Amino acid sequence: MKLRSVKITPIAFRDPPLLNAAGIHEPYALRSIIELESDTGQIGLGESYGDASFLRLTSALQPSLVGLDPFDLNGLRARVQKVVSGTRVEAGAEFLLAPGTDPVKNAQKLFSAFEVAMLDMQARSLDRPLVDMLGGRVRDEVPFSAYLFFKYAHHIDADYPADAWGETLTPEQLVVQAQTMVDRHGFGSFKLKGGVLPPDQELASIQALARHFPGKPLRIDPNGNWSLPTAIEMGRKLEGLLEYYEDPCPTLADMAELHRATGMPLATNMVVTDMAQFRENVAANGCQIILSDHHYWGGLRETQLLARMCEVFGMGLSMHSNSHLGISLMAMTHLAASVPLLSYACDTHYPWLDPAEEVIQGGQLRFHEGAIVLGEAPGLGVDIDQDALARLHQQFLECGIRSRNDAAQMRKYQPEWGGQAPRF
Amino acid sequence: MKLRSVKITPIAFRDPPLLNAAGIHEPYALRSIIELESDTGQIGLGESYGDASFLRLTSALQPSLVGLDPFDLNGLRARVQKVVSGTRVEAGAEFLLAPGTDPVKNAQKLFSAFEVAMLDMQARSLDRPLVDMLGGRVRDEVPFSAYLFFKYAHHIDADYPADAWGETLTPEQLVVQAQTMVDRHGFGSFKLKGGVLPPDQELASIQALARHFPGKPLRIDPNGNWSLPTAIEMGRKLEGLLEYYEDPCPTLADMAELHRATGMPLATNMVVTDMAQFRENVAANGCQIILSDHHYWGGLRETQLLARMCEVFGMGLSMHSNSHLGISLMAMTHLAASVPLLSYACDTHYPWLDPAEEVIQGGQLRFHEGAIVLGEAPGLGVDIDQDALARLHQQFLECGIRSRNDAAQMRKYQPEWGGQAPRF
Repeated sequence: MKLRSVKITPIAFRDPPLLNAAGIHEPYALRSIIELESDTGQIGLGESYGDASFLRLTSALQPSLVGLDPFDLNGLRARVQKVVSGTRVEAGAEFLLAPGTDPVKNAQKLFSAFEVAMLDMQARSLDRPLVDMLGGRVRDEVPFSAYLFFKYAHHIDADYPADAWGETLTPEQLVVQAQTMVDRHGFGSFKLKGGVLPPDQELASIQALARHFPGKPLRIDPNGNWSLPTAIEMGRKLEGLLEYYEDPCPTLADMAELHRATGMPLATNMVVTDMAQFRENVAANGCQIILSDHHYWGGLRETQLLARMCEVFGMGLSMHSNSHLGISLMAMTHLAASVPLLSYACDTHYPWLDPAEEVIQGGQLRFHEGAIVLGEAPGLGVDIDQDALARLHQQFLECGIRSRNDAAQMRKYQPEWGGQAPRF
Repeated sequence: MKLRSVKITPIAFRDPPLLNAAGIHEPYALRSIIELESDTGQIGLGESYGDASFLRLTSALQPSLVGLDPFDLNGLRARVQKVVSGTRVEAGAEFLLAPGTDPVKNAQKLFSAFEVAMLDMQARSLDRPLVDMLGGRVRDEVPFSAYLFFKYAHHIDADYPADAWGETLTPEQLVVQAQTMVDRHGFGSFKLKGGVLPPDQELASIQALARHFPGKPLRIDPNGNWSLPTAIEMGRKLEGLLEYYEDPCPTLADMAELHRATGMPLATNMVVTDMAQFRENVAANGCQIILSDHHYWGGLRETQLLARMCEVFGMGLSMHSNSHLGISLMAMTHLAASVPLLSYACDTHYPWLDPAEEVIQGGQLRFHEGAIVLGEAPGLGVDIDQDALARLHQQFLECGIRSRNDAAQMRKYQPEWGGQAPRF
């Protein structure tokens, strides 16, 4: 079995005006959809980043993949290395909110995108779920948490109607948002994207959630937008309310100092985002929980490795998310189903997806009591709706966005936006 | 596809009177041969330890494996955990020469034995070499080193004629042994099992090898039988002669002190033998090269993980060996072919195997210029010679040995043998 064709389709989908430390989501989020086909007619699917820099990499890699054996992941790695080492690393975004936008992760990102598709093809050729290529499942249901955002009611510049969520800028509005998520999807834990409003308002929001959902695990993620003194002060006020305290400060040194000062379990997807940083974190004991993301950690097998390393070094593991569609959700689910240590509910932006914007057949996947249930369908268990793909690609061509820039978007609302981080 | 039958056959094969820090090899070495068969008629082969303690574990595990999906490695892990947690850990051998005899490694040893056989079955069912289940090959040839031993000419109590190697107790005899290995198998590097003769005699042996094989990589492995002062003194005398200095001292603390004192790269298969010790070694910087062995590190995938961890923490990786047959040699070869970091020539006892004692069809595997060449045959690429298996099993039944004890064997030659380690 050899790869006969490699199709990479950039798409754009509607994304709500969600606020974060960097600014605000643009009206469209970008992804790429990968479709592999073998000489035996087998397919393999993947989903990854869709910014211009990443698409240049996938285009450079594409021709070298034809003829590759889909079981030859080391062959993929060699081809990725060749492309990445020959590519100038471009300057990253203004504010690196997530490692997915960091060009130093190019090799891991590129490998992951195609590794998932190759594992999907392997599994489909065996008529088995993808999790079987990862050692088999340790659980049938993968729990996700309700990912809460402060948000505006509508985009300043969208060419489509406002979403139905409305505005969320107060603790009361946040509780309504959270309750809606629970009613729709059955989530049993909550993550608040913080670093947006003054810290005391975010504290009040967490306190409101704690009152409204007593006993449910809560998390806050200020995306490194709090200074160390602020994080220590807020940590003391948040004591006892949080399952874990995610990326309050921007550096590993700050996180280590914060942990020493408060003893709170700290989680990160910002200061431990690759193996070199993992090693630094072992020495510094900055973070006790790593938020994995196969898209930039180098794929599903490498994230399994990360999980074992977390076990070895006594750390916990949970899962990070960017805006994504159902292919990524299923890749996350198969991965999480194979990893004994992944016992926290995973992050996902999926509830923020407009149901009309899904690219898979049958439309948006459903959560059952907050979890995705893994069936026995071959591979990832999803297939492409080619009409939807064509429509979302057309949207990509027309939307004009080529690289995510939440800060530039925010300047459309607040022209003076930007400046020093951490802000608070 | 489900496992329909699980057959575990203990065997004994003739083993030469090789000397080591613990004593001397007994006339027979023990192994177990694992044969899985699926409901579709697919087979899967494994080879592991054959001592009574390990065989009790495999017998306890055996019934729970029938019906298991050969892709369900996590299911295997759960069954292994259940058996091991319900088993009293028996006292280890008198002198723990290799972690394979250490009962605290029961879970890793048991998992590995069947993981290899399940991966073999997976690969055979796909008509692919086993390395394809490990991400594909990064090399087609896996180099091994010539494993040199001091030895007696014949066993004190064997029921079969002496081997053709004769005695090796002097530097001159050792050079002859090494040259014979090179002539037969083409090895390009040499490992001397030390900790046997007074250190200055072993130093003279290394110096003789260096003169006879200029520029070829040399290693010495005293198996922790040198005190720290001896190891420092010998290290200074060995400076510049060694590729790496393997397990001179018995503890991680000693190894760390030795590394600080000499700056020499230290290798180990004695003080870093599991993930907990790996973590300790990261903190202590005792050893810079880990000698992996899938038999006790928890299988092929877990050894791939170890390899990545060595990369992350800036360590090197090579491969340890106990007395073994061709199934283990092929498992080591497929593993090594999949691991970019495994760039040292691996250890193997295989050249010490009497060709009449091999259990695979076609007899003993051949080295080509010191390497095993990986072909395209499905799975491990070897099959059982059932007549040979029956004969070696009969030998097991008759030989009377049930647990390796090199010290007790040595007392047949030297009744006062034993006492404090390190000896020198």
